[in-house]
Amino acid sequence: MFRSPVWLTSVCHLSEERSEPLPTQLYHDLVRAVRDGRIGDGDRLPSSRRAAEDLGVSRTTVTSAYELLAAEGIITVRQGAAPRVISPEHSIQDQTCRHGPTPSLRGEALSADFRREVLPTSGGALAPGEPDETLFPADEWARLLRRVSRRRLGAPALYGDTYGVEDLRLALRDRLASDRGVHVDADQIVIVPGSQAAMALLAQVLTDPGDLAAIEDPGWLGARAAFLGAGLRLSPLRVDAGGADPAGLPVEARLAYLTPSNQYPLGKRLSLSRRLEFIARAKVTGAVLIEDDYDSDFHWSGRTIPALAAQDHDGHVVLIGSASKALLPALRIGWIVVPPGLIDTVRRAQRNLGMIANLHAQFALAELMQSGRYRVQIRRIARDYQGRVRTLVEALTAISEVTVHPPDGGVQVTLQFRSDLDEEPVLAELARRGLHPGRLSGYCQRGDLRGLVIGVGSATPERITMLRDGLRNLFDQETKHV
Amino acid sequence: MFRSPVWLTSVCHLSEERSEPLPTQLYHDLVRAVRDGRIGDGDRLPSSRRAAEDLGVSRTTVTSAYELLAAEGIITVRQGAAPRVISPEHSIQDQTCRHGPTPSLRGEALSADFRREVLPTSGGALAPGEPDETLFPADEWARLLRRVSRRRLGAPALYGDTYGVEDLRLALRDRLASDRGVHVDADQIVIVPGSQAAMALLAQVLTDPGDLAAIEDPGWLGARAAFLGAGLRLSPLRVDAGGADPAGLPVEARLAYLTPSNQYPLGKRLSLSRRLEFIARAKVTGAVLIEDDYDSDFHWSGRTIPALAAQDHDGHVVLIGSASKALLPALRIGWIVVPPGLIDTVRRAQRNLGMIANLHAQFALAELMQSGRYRVQIRRIARDYQGRVRTLVEALTAISEVTVHPPDGGVQVTLQFRSDLDEEPVLAELARRGLHPGRLSGYCQRGDLRGLVIGVGSATPERITMLRDGLRNLFDQETKHV
Repeated sequence: MFRSPVWLTSVCHLSEERSEPLPTQLYHDLVRAVRDGRIGDGDRLPSSRRAAEDLGVSRTTVTSAYELLAAEGIITVRQGAAPRVISPEHSIQDQTCRHGPTPSLRGEALSADFRREVLPTSGGALAPGEPDETLFPADEWARLLRRVSRRRLGAPALYGDTYGVEDLRLALRDRLASDRGVHVDADQIVIVPGSQAAMALLAQVLTDPGDLAAIEDPGWLGARAAFLGAGLRLSPLRVDAGGADPAGLPVEARLAYLTPSNQYPLGKRLSLSRRLEFIARAKVTGAVLIEDDYDSDFHWSGRTIPALAAQDHDGHVVLIGSASKALLPALRIGWIVVPPGLIDTVRRAQRNLGMIANLHAQFALAELMQSGRYRVQIRRIARDYQGRVRTLVEALTAISEVTVHPPDGGVQVTLQFRSDLDEEPVLAELARRGLHPGRLSGYCQRGDLRGLVIGVGSATPERITMLRDGLRNLFDQETKHV
Repeated sequence: MFRSPVWLTSVCHLSEERSEPLPTQLYHDLVRAVRDGRIGDGDRLPSSRRAAEDLGVSRTTVTSAYELLAAEGIITVRQGAAPRVISPEHSIQDQTCRHGPTPSLRGEALSADFRREVLPTSGGALAPGEPDETLFPADEWARLLRRVSRRRLGAPALYGDTYGVEDLRLALRDRLASDRGVHVDADQIVIVPGSQAAMALLAQVLTDPGDLAAIEDPGWLGARAAFLGAGLRLSPLRVDAGGADPAGLPVEARLAYLTPSNQYPLGKRLSLSRRLEFIARAKVTGAVLIEDDYDSDFHWSGRTIPALAAQDHDGHVVLIGSASKALLPALRIGWIVVPPGLIDTVRRAQRNLGMIANLHAQFALAELMQSGRYRVQIRRIARDYQGRVRTLVEALTAISEVTVHPPDGGVQVTLQFRSDLDEEPVLAELARRGLHPGRLSGYCQRGDLRGLVIGVGSATPERITMLRDGLRNLFDQETKHV
């Protein structure tokens, strides 16, 4: 180490070509020099006046850079004395160090990763629950976004109407009445950035840590994550051909998560008698039934049954939905239909949790619904998905070792292994063929079902054939072993 | 009540003109008839065959409508018997009834409404913290949105990268390094739907209910709402000319909320010595310092001081920011810079809470930053806001009874009453003139400060003059009374 001040021109190369302002350039060059060890502990830097002369810049430029370095603890600047570089282990070297704060118990509970249990990757071929991006009306959406984002929005663009823009709430109110048999006031609708936010919000607003929540088993992982994240105890609800069984709803349960229109992932529809039974029990116990209407939009088998919420008149059912399947998850738009008595609470909690959806997307969706084009889109994709589901089901029923659960709608088909086959070799074999369906046991709390949950969003005829052949190979081998 | 079946043609008017499908038309007409009392308890409806004939529609249309009515408990359909309308008080009449579920204790805590204490209305003239919508580059944003929303996004459009698209995280990384002196990896950046979501997320991930959190007093209401919503006890940090006082940071505090670059709402900058003191204390106690960098973008007085996070090398500072002031709150985009050790936890918790920002807005912001136009926008609005602040400060310093706190940046100016004047008459008088600044005492936990927090986003020269005159009148009267 040299005693004389660092020769700045040897480490700094200020230039007009560089995009950064001069002080930032000087600052970065010096940081780099310390990182590289060209300048070390105790080295002196020239005074700001001297440095300004050497580098041919204003003194302000230098003092500004020195201030940044001092603020970061890279140099010490003492009145009268020359600036000195201080020991690197107290400075930038540490920026990569790993010790530091740790999550709380709640943080641990909130950060459970259930998806890993069922899905190796997002956007993988045959991944369940994922719509087909190519069915998204991108050009139309682009036109709508362009139009609405040029408008002056006024208060809503600032911090007003955080619970959702009126246009969208009105459009949803009409749609819920005409298509789901749910007659509510637009004020009961709260817009959030998707179903997951809706679940987390409701869990936190309606329960306290330690409360009991009932949840379909097998069921949607997002609901499990939201409930456990809220510190709840879970009580699994058995699912059979009639959907979730209300007999399993504990008296002390504060919440129950249900997918009445198309059980996820088994694809059953909740029978009318069970619907009435769930509501009757909720009336007695005071539980809130969360109805996830996630894909009621693409129902094709038989006539549409109104939502469970349509049969509830005392606010025991809270309906949630989203545009993720009909359009695209990327939009991050979901909704909650809350009972009149909970409107203010849910609105304020949603605001305090910052679960607020992008306004331009809200206005665009409102226009899409008002123009009737949303309905057209739904019909279009419903036809498309129905075709794929049919092909998939036909291809799979050919296989002897499995039971296929033909869904009433939605974007996935569940295939259950008849024998107690292990999922591992099947998933591994399919992965080798580039196919990544979900692992059925991962959706179970008791883990008593084995099989595959197959997304139709990415189910091309080729992939369907590959899947069928892959499974045939496997099960033929298995049968031989038996 | 007539014994013969309801004469459907008298209550139903099916028509091609109506947008709804025939079964829905029939369903709606019958619901309306029951609502209006034209059909009542016990009334018989014709059989589906008979009804189909009367109305000249297919029998499927009728059975479909009857199914909907039965599912809603409006009619009973029994094998062989004619459908009957059942007592209205068990059906739609009840849909407006108010009893039902109530919020939990956590729900109550989550739904506190502090804004009401300080703000009568959103988007009101001189409302604090609200940017000027006319400064938002709407046409440019519209072009960007149009372009990015036509792209195929792949996995991120489905359920991948919920923690933020890479383009934006890279753009933010560069900006944080060049403008805030914060050198981090893009993986440390998590995108959320705004600063409020960032606060709620961090509070839940880093603390357990009952933990202690320090918070600037006076301070941002959103932080208070997030901390109380997470069940935390609050410890106020006194704010003076040097910003928040680290001496007030309790040893047991797990979190501290700070606005180092421009204290909200007093407009002070946290002094360098206090910055180092906060970090030193955090190292000892293990507390996490949340640095809200909310408006560091429009700093004009003196050189920009790097962020507090730039001085921290052990992950004790978590920086949050948003595009709400530089662009528009409506975009719902904010970010968190987390220490390497917390990346996975925060990403998973953010996903499980559904605090996910719209992807098209994320891509548009990334492009705006990469193209350098974001920087241009910031310079432009900084000049504009600085001009308004100057005019405002000049106008107000003329008034003898108040102390003006000239800010180093930001979009509000705080005015403190010298004498122990009451805020009520002042706010009332200004409201009469159509001016709605914030109530300073509302930002205080101890409530020991009185005054006004004036937003410059809506501060036109006319309004500034009205404000000055209004205050002069009031304080002249006050002085006379003394």
